[in-house]
Amino acid sequence: MAYKENYPSKLLEDAVDAISSLPGVGRRSALRLALHLLKQPQENVHHFTAAIGRLRDEVRYCRECMMISDDEVCSICGDRSRDRRTICVVESVRDVMSIENTGQYHGVYHVLGGIISPINGVGPSDLTIRQLVDRVAGLVSPEALFEADAPGLDGAPAEVILALSGDVEGETTAFYIYRQISQYGVKVSSLARGLGFGDNLEYADELTLGRSIVNRQLFKP
Amino acid sequence: MAYKENYPSKLLEDAVDAISSLPGVGRRSALRLALHLLKQPQENVHHFTAAIGRLRDEVRYCRECMMISDDEVCSICGDRSRDRRTICVVESVRDVMSIENTGQYHGVYHVLGGIISPINGVGPSDLTIRQLVDRVAGLVSPEALFEADAPGLDGAPAEVILALSGDVEGETTAFYIYRQISQYGVKVSSLARGLGFGDNLEYADELTLGRSIVNRQLFKP
Repeated sequence: MAYKENYPSKLLEDAVDAISSLPGVGRRSALRLALHLLKQPQENVHHFTAAIGRLRDEVRYCRECMMISDDEVCSICGDRSRDRRTICVVESVRDVMSIENTGQYHGVYHVLGGIISPINGVGPSDLTIRQLVDRVAGLVSPEALFEADAPGLDGAPAEVILALSGDVEGETTAFYIYRQISQYGVKVSSLARGLGFGDNLEYADELTLGRSIVNRQLFKP
Repeated sequence: MAYKENYPSKLLEDAVDAISSLPGVGRRSALRLALHLLKQPQENVHHFTAAIGRLRDEVRYCRECMMISDDEVCSICGDRSRDRRTICVVESVRDVMSIENTGQYHGVYHVLGGIISPINGVGPSDLTIRQLVDRVAGLVSPEALFEADAPGLDGAPAEVILALSGDVEGETTAFYIYRQISQYGVKVSSLARGLGFGDNLEYADELTLGRSIVNRQLFKP
């Protein structure tokens, strides 16, 4: 049954329009949120809108990895203890936060800002692939290779980890990037795919289970 | 598993704090929404925050029924075809919109702005009960009763419909209001409760089914 909309006020209707433009927020939820905000003290609502406005107006991106940052260089790229010769390529800021939360990765990142998706009109030039290629080129430049005190430069080859989604768009993007950087002779890897930690075989889909068998690993008791 | 929060930027963290203060929005959803807003054109985000800010700053309430309104008197109270001697008392603006959407009600409203809830620190004086009592007193004043051309004044007694929730707080509020207005000799009614339209007996709870039997109505084929 359709929800008829007879707003008692244009102000309310405009606010509901705005809130329901957010992804995953329907008009009923938007109305609920608008009425909630209406009940809050005025300064709370000002604080709410100011925090969102400031994020959009004042946001900066790390000049190295394109991550959201308060400074010119983000805290990860600025951390000299991280391995700057391992670059993990991700779609979004959220992916960086997720991988950081694992505590398992000690290299740096490169945020693409999206994924190649012809259906959504996103091509390679809309992403930060050009900057990634420049970074990779820099990694194997004579200057970088001879800079003796460069951290992590212990003779190991530079590595680019393509940490993209396993869907068609992710695979397409990974393949495109691979073609752009393979000429530089860096190691290119992608995320391991298989059963989730603690997953039961019974409930795994066949593709995942198949990959888990093909990419099986030595048992280390 | 707890979601660790290492925000790459204070601006982002502030925005997530603000968005997750909304009811029913967790920090993960808030992050998703913040990153969505970050990808939008700057003027869209300004439009978004302005619509919300304006709602809170410029909202007005109908001086009659306390409904949100763009004018001093809302479109329902201002509609001369509506029965001004039937007042439907509701908790919130949303309830008015829901009842209006049924198209079954032709009286006016009174928005309480909440419900009596000692646990949430909401007492009668936080609601618009005082104004309701004044309105009811006005309905039975000699001036109103002798004003020949008052619409709907066809000798029928004035009626107050208590359209509140069926929970303890709703019942408490209804009882409180009843005690305040019963002295004026108006008819006081409450919403019919019973099986939902099209409901199957099999799935009805016992309280609802019980009320449906007690309040059974003449079969009109």
